[in-house]
Amino acid sequence: MNFNKILAFFIPRDRIFFTLFSKSSENLVEIAKVLTELVNATVPEKRAELNKMIADLEHVGDDITHNIFTELSTNFITPFDREDIHYLASSLDDIVDFIHGTSKRMDLYKIEESTIAMKKLAEIIEKSAKEIHVAVSNMENMNNPIRIREAIVRINSLENHADDIFDGAIADLLNNETNAVKVIKMKEVLANMETATDKCEDVANVIESILVKNS
Amino acid sequence: MNFNKILAFFIPRDRIFFTLFSKSSENLVEIAKVLTELVNATVPEKRAELNKMIADLEHVGDDITHNIFTELSTNFITPFDREDIHYLASSLDDIVDFIHGTSKRMDLYKIEESTIAMKKLAEIIEKSAKEIHVAVSNMENMNNPIRIREAIVRINSLENHADDIFDGAIADLLNNETNAVKVIKMKEVLANMETATDKCEDVANVIESILVKNS
Amino acid sequence: MNFNKILAFFIPRDRIFFTLFSKSSENLVEIAKVLTELVNATVPEKRAELNKMIADLEHVGDDITHNIFTELSTNFITPFDREDIHYLASSLDDIVDFIHGTSKRMDLYKIEESTIAMKKLAEIIEKSAKEIHVAVSNMENMNNPIRIREAIVRINSLENHADDIFDGAIADLLNNETNAVKVIKMKEVLANMETATDKCEDVANVIESILVKNS
Repeated sequence: MNFNKILAFFIPRDRIFFTLFSKSSENLVEIAKVLTELVNATVPEKRAELNKMIADLEHVGDDITHNIFTELSTNFITPFDREDIHYLASSLDDIVDFIHGTSKRMDLYKIEESTIAMKKLAEIIEKSAKEIHVAVSNMENMNNPIRIREAIVRINSLENHADDIFDGAIADLLNNETNAVKVIKMKEVLANMETATDKCEDVANVIESILVKNS
Repeated sequence: MNFNKILAFFIPRDRIFFTLFSKSSENLVEIAKVLTELVNATVPEKRAELNKMIADLEHVGDDITHNIFTELSTNFITPFDREDIHYLASSLDDIVDFIHGTSKRMDLYKIEESTIAMKKLAEIIEKSAKEIHVAVSNMENMNNPIRIREAIVRINSLENHADDIFDGAIADLLNNETNAVKVIKMKEVLANMETATDKCEDVANVIESILVKNS
Repeated sequence: MNFNKILAFFIPRDRIFFTLFSKSSENLVEIAKVLTELVNATVPEKRAELNKMIADLEHVGDDITHNIFTELSTNFITPFDREDIHYLASSLDDIVDFIHGTSKRMDLYKIEESTIAMKKLAEIIEKSAKEIHVAVSNMENMNNPIRIREAIVRINSLENHADDIFDGAIADLLNNETNAVKVIKMKEVLANMETATDKCEDVANVIESILVKNS
């Protein structure tokens, strides 16, 4: 909040949204990187440390989202449609929440070894997060719409890829794993990761819609 | 996209939404019919063919939805509230997605025999799709609001019926099936079918709201 | 509908929303109280009676929600943003639906003894419902914004508490219960209760946003 108030003196009021969105997507890249580390970590202490980092970054994301909502409620002028700002902020927050949900479940269900599907999904989430950061950072001046469009195409294609990995992994579990409780645990973790990529697609969709309206 | 552009020369700009919604609900009826065939098919090759048809029709539906969103972003004049157009298009798309989700899961989980509940739910989805097509096709001139209202009432009543079938089938599974992995598989398939009928209700709700505003 | 029409003659048109929201949150408190009784009931006949009461109160809630939507469609003037009215009504309705979903599953899955987690979650839902009623009842004159803000803070903190109880209960089930079908049943019931608290948080969020816009 303090950071926000200081900025408010230097930045034209409607510019502050770009600053906050950029902070939000930067934080998303951070948490996505830690998730990749987590699914590749083999030492329990390391995993505990990474889970803690993810929980902390989720809090940071919450604060940024809250700041965007506060600005939206109090600012008369916005750089693009209010509902698009709301949707973009919520969707960015949702991705972070599902990454946090993944880490929380791995911890609570004592999942000590990540499957190949989990590692692939973490990689896709990290790649999508980076493309989102590129798209969001280029929104302010809209002077590189081609780069934004490329990011959108990549995010959509990454989400399709995630769907296939998820469907295959679930079918594999249901057809081959006889321990049903293990099936439930893994299904929960994988579903959280797949939903994170769905939310990345939501972000791409709203950015595309903003782009169309402002071109 | 081409079809859309050609139409744009002949149809007043805001009329194009009715054309596109009618195409969307027509495609919905098609995919719902194939689902009914699928749950009644006993030959594996036939099922594979029907699964392929459903996947293709889902792509057709995606293209129509995308066209509606593009028109919405670029058209200044719309025949009714922009958010209602967006919600109607999304909900029609959601029904198609959940039908596709049902077929994909039946295939991936190697479900070779449909239960009575599955057959009943497919029948309800097909009936709801036909009522939706009637309602949507009558929206352009609003000259038959009674027929639209009848369709809305039927869709709501079909959704209630689907809820009861779903609840009964899940309770039956959980109380009588001891193979938990089988429970998980069937629960997933039935939940996809039930959610398809929820989305039919969403379509009925938004059409009702459009009707009230324009009467 | 009749009640609504009679009121319409006595209350300035845009005031009716406060009356209806107050009825909605009052009904929410009622159904939440019955849920607490249900998870503490040990006699089957008593449970059957309480399940019936919950189903009836869910119908009452549906009617109130429907009335709010009808007023929204036909009233030109609203006391605050139309989309906030819609969202508030839907979220209140969602809480009631998830309470009903909890009772329905306890009945269908023949759950004869509630766990400590279920009892704690029911208590949290009832407390949240009461805070929501306080906040909603104070919205008309906005003459006690401090009391509304206190309620919002409490609802958010109750939701966080519910998350922890839910996560702990699921982890406990998945790590210690070997009967997977039992795990699925309990997971469904607990998830319905936890989602009810999520919807309470949605209500708190929209009231906060209305407060900010009108202060």
